[in-house]
Amino acid sequence: MASKDWKAKAKALKKTLKGMTAASDQTGTSAAQVVAKKAKQVSPLAPARFPSLPIIAGVEFSAVEAGIKYQNRKDVMLVRLAAGTAMAGAFTRSSTRSGCVRDCQTKLALKVAPNTGAAIIVNSGNSNAFTGAVGDKAVAAVTGSVAQALDLPAERVFSSSTGVIGEPLPFEKILDKVPALTSALREDAIEMAAHAMMTTDTFPKGATATVQGDGGLIQIAGIAKGSGMIAPDMATMLVYIFTDAKIAARDLQKMLSRNVDQTFNSITVDSDTSTSDTLLIAATGQSAAAAVKGPVAKAFEAALRDVMMNLAHQVIRDGEGATKFVEVRVTGAASDVDAHKVALSIANSPLVKTAIAGQDPNWGRIVAAIGKSGAAADRDKLTIKFGDILVAKNGWRSPGYSEDEGAAYMLQSELVIAVDMGLGRSKRSVWTCDLTNGYIQINADYRS
Amino acid sequence: MASKDWKAKAKALKKTLKGMTAASDQTGTSAAQVVAKKAKQVSPLAPARFPSLPIIAGVEFSAVEAGIKYQNRKDVMLVRLAAGTAMAGAFTRSSTRSGCVRDCQTKLALKVAPNTGAAIIVNSGNSNAFTGAVGDKAVAAVTGSVAQALDLPAERVFSSSTGVIGEPLPFEKILDKVPALTSALREDAIEMAAHAMMTTDTFPKGATATVQGDGGLIQIAGIAKGSGMIAPDMATMLVYIFTDAKIAARDLQKMLSRNVDQTFNSITVDSDTSTSDTLLIAATGQSAAAAVKGPVAKAFEAALRDVMMNLAHQVIRDGEGATKFVEVRVTGAASDVDAHKVALSIANSPLVKTAIAGQDPNWGRIVAAIGKSGAAADRDKLTIKFGDILVAKNGWRSPGYSEDEGAAYMLQSELVIAVDMGLGRSKRSVWTCDLTNGYIQINADYRS
Repeated sequence: MASKDWKAKAKALKKTLKGMTAASDQTGTSAAQVVAKKAKQVSPLAPARFPSLPIIAGVEFSAVEAGIKYQNRKDVMLVRLAAGTAMAGAFTRSSTRSGCVRDCQTKLALKVAPNTGAAIIVNSGNSNAFTGAVGDKAVAAVTGSVAQALDLPAERVFSSSTGVIGEPLPFEKILDKVPALTSALREDAIEMAAHAMMTTDTFPKGATATVQGDGGLIQIAGIAKGSGMIAPDMATMLVYIFTDAKIAARDLQKMLSRNVDQTFNSITVDSDTSTSDTLLIAATGQSAAAAVKGPVAKAFEAALRDVMMNLAHQVIRDGEGATKFVEVRVTGAASDVDAHKVALSIANSPLVKTAIAGQDPNWGRIVAAIGKSGAAADRDKLTIKFGDILVAKNGWRSPGYSEDEGAAYMLQSELVIAVDMGLGRSKRSVWTCDLTNGYIQINADYRS
Repeated sequence: MASKDWKAKAKALKKTLKGMTAASDQTGTSAAQVVAKKAKQVSPLAPARFPSLPIIAGVEFSAVEAGIKYQNRKDVMLVRLAAGTAMAGAFTRSSTRSGCVRDCQTKLALKVAPNTGAAIIVNSGNSNAFTGAVGDKAVAAVTGSVAQALDLPAERVFSSSTGVIGEPLPFEKILDKVPALTSALREDAIEMAAHAMMTTDTFPKGATATVQGDGGLIQIAGIAKGSGMIAPDMATMLVYIFTDAKIAARDLQKMLSRNVDQTFNSITVDSDTSTSDTLLIAATGQSAAAAVKGPVAKAFEAALRDVMMNLAHQVIRDGEGATKFVEVRVTGAASDVDAHKVALSIANSPLVKTAIAGQDPNWGRIVAAIGKSGAAADRDKLTIKFGDILVAKNGWRSPGYSEDEGAAYMLQSELVIAVDMGLGRSKRSVWTCDLTNGYIQINADYRS
């Protein structure tokens, strides 16, 4: 960025900030508190609107109000997938993962041929995690009920629950609504489904991509929920991606597994890992295009990856209390493992995240986070940049760096922290957000 | 705790809380915000007063105002140690640790016989970390100047710097004050020294113990600083312990190393590791008691450990924004490593820490933290307690647990979260504090 550009931008942004500070002075609250108070409003980092998602042939949605925890909003959603749908998934590795997650894993491992249809049922408000044998029975009852209503084998009905951990799930409320859910299924209700699975989310998350297949288009549409308790450990929170591609389950699973690491495994809001993280992909095979293979397979995988990355970034954009969207870009690491360690150490550091919240270009805290990461590091070979601004190199502050320039950069809502380790060729990006009063308030108040 | 006891206690505490809430309603700020606003005041968890520390024969202190960053307060302190003083130390393992830390490590490794005296010089306001070769020169200049002034070999002068990372240390300001420091040395000025090294600390930290040696008493007095960027990775922040014991440096080092793991390596405020963590122990050998050996060695080590634990706990009690002092006590783990992993995972979980700040007995988040720890865990064998209150066992909420009882417990300012893994005999405690708006405000504002 040219010097004049950032100065002009900084001036404008500082003016805005000054307005906020002035306002806050009157009420005795800081700008961060103002943001915190608006925590229930839509995240300032949210996309302008929910994207227009295509209808995926063979996929229908419905959602109802079951009153599990939230009132006056839809909290259970159902997806029906036509016969011939291939399924693949990725899940949290938490040792205390929920009954739903274990059930999905068991069912996918059965590798049932997709000659029957399938279904996914999701509730918000209660995660049915750490609810013991009673929780496992609830999963069996809910998936069994959907299987019966839709005339599917039980092993083709997948479920997710998201919300409070440790409270028994009032699953009878879901059972009562199965008839309403099955009778309301519609091809064009994916946005409603995205809404029904929200918890502390401030906006529903959707993404889409289209691929030119042999003989026709292949469509991909995905939805996600996630806001807090976001850390990479196979997938993140709840994500469902639908496509009409003709592709075998094992190929779909391979594509998913190849791309989950640099998408959903590369985001962190708060370093906390959910017990419910679930990513399911369903391919109905109803596209007019021929089976996915050759160059189309490459294009399809790239499109799938785009949708995954887009949804992963939206989860960060809805990070609890977030006011900044931050890419931590590590290059020059001695190994891939080291690159990931350094990126996560910076992205999870409360001191780095609070400095970002305070719009303070406190690159010293980045140095400390590199130091604690456990990765190979040589102080005198490190390079640190804020965006294009060279901040530090050769073991100390760059002579050309000006604190004013750094401070101006930090006023932006989208930031890149770039670290070159100067040791090798491995690289990794991780996406995160800042740590604000909003996060504290949401999580100190949640449940109470 | 008998049922009546906690009910009475809860009633009283709820009344107090209600007062806070009522007050906060009027101003539109939460109780947590009230605490945050008082962040510059002394921590609510602080001891009533600085302890009365004994004079340690052979140890003198002084402190001056050098204006390194802070104005109108002492920010550099000097300790002179008499000839015959044995030294031992423990340091951060950060790969970006400061020049002072590397210098201390190099000097201790030289194993210079204590026939000359020694000195320690400490400044606050600037950590001289990630300041490259210029920073290393500053360390050499400061320690060299003290060595000359006190007629000591340079390898017997140790230094620490604490404060902002990455800013060049204005070390000339320290050099200018060396004459004033050396002329002001006094045996009874340890509290002043503890004050001079404070940064975001809200109170100076001191602890003492006395041991009956053969032929006389052995005294121990220690001081510490630390408030944020506290995580276990050899020692934590700055700690200096003085004793008049007659003990060889190698024995002192062994005792220190044996006990650092369960004291300074078992505390965490925010999971961030400092680049400056330094623990130095100096034994002047001037006690009337005979050399430390046999049963006296055991008693001395126990007393030393008590002082280390006491100072470690005070660091947590001064955790940035802290309103709760929390012991996470893990038992029944499959291995020592697992016990430590689980305890740290809970103690570092932002969601657990914000729930504690919100006085919410949200034990589900504890389950999630256990799950993400990487330690062996079996949902159906876990037991979770708040103090003596059985919360969960056998994979779900205990039938006898009442949320009201849990909520009443959380109102206390000192909490024990006890987790039995039900898998083995390994155990570990870690001490931490809650995560509040106060932490955010201190760290979003610090430096700016």
